[in-house]
Amino acid sequence: MQKEGRIYGVGLGPGALDLLSVRADKLVRGADHIAYFRKAGKPGHARQIVNEIISKNATEFAMEYPVTTEISLSDPAYNQILSTFYDSCCTHLGSLCDGGSDVIVLCEGDPFFYGSFMHLHRRLLPKYAVQVVPAITGMSGAWTATNMPITWGDDVLTVLMGTLPEDEIQRKIADTDAAIIMKVGRHLAKIKKALHAANKLEDAYIIEYATMANQNICLLTDYQPATAPYFSIIALHGHGRRP
Amino acid sequence: MQKEGRIYGVGLGPGALDLLSVRADKLVRGADHIAYFRKAGKPGHARQIVNEIISKNATEFAMEYPVTTEISLSDPAYNQILSTFYDSCCTHLGSLCDGGSDVIVLCEGDPFFYGSFMHLHRRLLPKYAVQVVPAITGMSGAWTATNMPITWGDDVLTVLMGTLPEDEIQRKIADTDAAIIMKVGRHLAKIKKALHAANKLEDAYIIEYATMANQNICLLTDYQPATAPYFSIIALHGHGRRP
Repeated sequence: MQKEGRIYGVGLGPGALDLLSVRADKLVRGADHIAYFRKAGKPGHARQIVNEIISKNATEFAMEYPVTTEISLSDPAYNQILSTFYDSCCTHLGSLCDGGSDVIVLCEGDPFFYGSFMHLHRRLLPKYAVQVVPAITGMSGAWTATNMPITWGDDVLTVLMGTLPEDEIQRKIADTDAAIIMKVGRHLAKIKKALHAANKLEDAYIIEYATMANQNICLLTDYQPATAPYFSIIALHGHGRRP
Repeated sequence: MQKEGRIYGVGLGPGALDLLSVRADKLVRGADHIAYFRKAGKPGHARQIVNEIISKNATEFAMEYPVTTEISLSDPAYNQILSTFYDSCCTHLGSLCDGGSDVIVLCEGDPFFYGSFMHLHRRLLPKYAVQVVPAITGMSGAWTATNMPITWGDDVLTVLMGTLPEDEIQRKIADTDAAIIMKVGRHLAKIKKALHAANKLEDAYIIEYATMANQNICLLTDYQPATAPYFSIIALHGHGRRP
């Protein structure tokens, strides 16, 4: 009887090819089947990170998001559309496993840290062997890019999404030593207001495309654009015990 | 004129050798000079992670902590002793650079995330070329070990040290979606009380030695020991949007 295949959710890290783990690098190079999410009409960022190391003979399965920002998160249709999409991705991935193939799912950042892979993981787990490879998070790439430690001693670090309401961001920022804000994009103006209200705007850095060729770091107060690219992270560094 | 050497703070990740990044793996394998922190009389955990890949001809500089838990953090002598220690480490590392050598400083986890390397980094930075290689954090290793995502959708993640006062841990835990508690060790009983008071004790997992051969995961309510090993992390998973 044929052996059933496995599904690997492989974290690729913040973007630089040599920041893949040795384990991830080996899995991607050896993959016969790879899968990845992408926005319709785009090459897919995860796919691009590993462009140089994917086997020419690998079969690719691009999972194209049916919606990104066109429908509001609060619209009930949003969840339904995404749910149907994830189900259909899993049907295909499952059929590859049933046929005896291992599948490498490429994941930006760390799969279990705000990643899309988790939506496949919870659907596949009851029936298939799923293995996750952790990775360097985008935020590690971002704080390393600032060349300043993010947390010292007993600092509290709070990780926030820019999609949260302004007063919630303000309250959290005012009550932490260090902070990371992800999903900045169109929420930049709101985040700036929240940081200002928490009296922390002057200390904040914004990092675009951390660890990538077009990496850009600047104080948020010096940042001119009205919106930020998807790969942007805002960092507030802690100042704890430093003997 | 001889070229001055560089100092690399190289994150090694949570503990498994193949979870080093490709960049870190290459730097460690090629190193003529390596340095690492360790407790006096111990082999040093960072050093052990890369035991198989260090060149036989590499010169090693073990930086032995003068104190660990013998002196209270609040004792003014603590800061003074550690400060003198870090200064003397930097004197030696600097002399190697002055002599034209690159030095690879091995760092557990990610160097800029609660790591000891940052105390060297801020001393060396004004005078030497220092480069930091980010890594998979111990907490990524820990949440991956539980085989459950740590954060979904807009979840807030709070990272806390077990060294904080009980009421502070309780307050923070009650006000977050997901949490990671590090530096558990002797603070286990206090952390359990804080989790119980925040009504979250039943949801907490403890992960010992994540990604290492002796990895152990269990619900905190099932965990019997009165104290936990240094490499222990407590995780409270978020439950955000999941279409």
